[in-house]
Amino acid sequence: MRALVVGGAGFIGSHLCENLLKQGHKVACMDNFSLGTRMNVELLHDFPDFVLYEGDAANRESMRKIVREFTPEYIFHLAANSDIQASAANPDIEYRNTYSTTFEILSAMREYGVKRLFFASTSAVYGDKREVELDENTPDLAPVSYYGAAKLGSEALIHAFSYMNDMQALIFRFPNVIGPHLTHGVVFDFMKRLEQEPDHLRILGDGKQTKPYIYVTDLVDAILRFMETEKAGITLYNVGVEGDTCVTRIADIVCEEMGLHGVRYEYTGGEGGWKGDVPRFRYCLDRIHGAGWRARYSSDEAVRKTVQEVWKSRRQ
Amino acid sequence: MRALVVGGAGFIGSHLCENLLKQGHKVACMDNFSLGTRMNVELLHDFPDFVLYEGDAANRESMRKIVREFTPEYIFHLAANSDIQASAANPDIEYRNTYSTTFEILSAMREYGVKRLFFASTSAVYGDKREVELDENTPDLAPVSYYGAAKLGSEALIHAFSYMNDMQALIFRFPNVIGPHLTHGVVFDFMKRLEQEPDHLRILGDGKQTKPYIYVTDLVDAILRFMETEKAGITLYNVGVEGDTCVTRIADIVCEEMGLHGVRYEYTGGEGGWKGDVPRFRYCLDRIHGAGWRARYSSDEAVRKTVQEVWKSRRQ
Repeated sequence: MRALVVGGAGFIGSHLCENLLKQGHKVACMDNFSLGTRMNVELLHDFPDFVLYEGDAANRESMRKIVREFTPEYIFHLAANSDIQASAANPDIEYRNTYSTTFEILSAMREYGVKRLFFASTSAVYGDKREVELDENTPDLAPVSYYGAAKLGSEALIHAFSYMNDMQALIFRFPNVIGPHLTHGVVFDFMKRLEQEPDHLRILGDGKQTKPYIYVTDLVDAILRFMETEKAGITLYNVGVEGDTCVTRIADIVCEEMGLHGVRYEYTGGEGGWKGDVPRFRYCLDRIHGAGWRARYSSDEAVRKTVQEVWKSRRQ
Repeated sequence: MRALVVGGAGFIGSHLCENLLKQGHKVACMDNFSLGTRMNVELLHDFPDFVLYEGDAANRESMRKIVREFTPEYIFHLAANSDIQASAANPDIEYRNTYSTTFEILSAMREYGVKRLFFASTSAVYGDKREVELDENTPDLAPVSYYGAAKLGSEALIHAFSYMNDMQALIFRFPNVIGPHLTHGVVFDFMKRLEQEPDHLRILGDGKQTKPYIYVTDLVDAILRFMETEKAGITLYNVGVEGDTCVTRIADIVCEEMGLHGVRYEYTGGEGGWKGDVPRFRYCLDRIHGAGWRARYSSDEAVRKTVQEVWKSRRQ
């Protein structure tokens, strides 16, 4: 199959490109290299069926040119802002990089008759509903971040474009995703800060923010497992893992794996890391478990494995 | 209060401007006159507290300039595409006129500290859920039109901007709205066509499409009634009327009120008027009724009154 991975040089996209290639698909990676890097896809050039396009999905001409040239049968849309703290200060980032990319991808699919889409959505579409176990039918979605709003708006676009143009779409609402190629988030930040100053660690909030962390290869496994859905219209899954991990526990794991002892934790206080952050959420995973898929790594294991892999690659 | 009505020269906006002025508010109307008309607001210039701005809400400079100059305390956002058949052929219309207007209004509010918003949403955010009575907690919102998608995306933006910037917002999900100044929709179309050819009437679909129609003054009454909500964050209501009216019944009422007899109805067949049209929906109105508000006119009465008023004004 001819697969176009938009945002394919990013953290998750680069893992997806690799695995699609290993499954024998022809893969085009499109990236504007604002967050993605050439290094993430460097090794993929060994595959003869890999092609790399530099282009911005939010740019109509650029997006359409690549769809016209590559003629994909399936588009994997992983192009989005992933630095949620940055967009909290400047919502334009989400408007352009998260919402407009979706609109232009769908618009190009409509123009050139591409019928299949994977979309990376997020737990942030639910908003702050810490009191309930979130399932795919949870009502009153009320995002508290511009990121969550742009993703929910994107889901709405996918519904309409799918209905109007007979497209099939698989939507995964991701939890926190971690693993090699990570560029943001608490695990990444802790490692970076402890590398510079190994005696103390500044922790945003009270350290009790508790979320499920999925290892990136588990997530990619789920994408590959469900991408050939036969269902017309939209297929939606919460994708998650067993358990969750609080921020202080992450700090402990990072210190352990980096061989640091007696690190002083300095909490900034308050319950959220920053405004727009949802400090706790839990997924109900009945739908995806019922479809026969489970993550290999628990949340704690995902954190530990990430630190091990990233730490190993940094010392190489 | 200083109220800015964006889309204030349109069908609903012009009625709202008039009633805000009658209540003693200072009112600025902003419109790009793409669908709104100067005629709709002509009589409002008699109010000394009325000011008219020509400007496009989707244009950042234009939007910010007007907010800066007028310094509104409350923004009523009624700027959107209202010609849903047009956007079915060209989704860019919704991206620009329905979604981007919302983003730029919220962005200007954030920039200049405006804290109160009214937003005109729609039954189209639910998608085609004809089997259920739609209430504000109905899950799985899945718009089938680009219009519904852009409105749902706008609601998502309002949630995030409200949370991040401590804004209050009142969101009404409108049903079909009719009355004087109407420029689109089945009642308007039937009158226009019968004026030209009074012996027959082409009816899209099977004529059994059945929706609630609210009279515009009832809707404006509800806006005025709830605009001073004290609740922080978002207040959301389905706004509707008693009963609903099928398309053939609308044709009957239009013929009766225009004094036409023996008009031949020609159905194009199929259940929906056009792709993306939701042929039937019903609202649960418990929330707004529980808050002490009811529409004065039933759906059938709203249709009849609209034909009477529009027909009267056309013969003047």
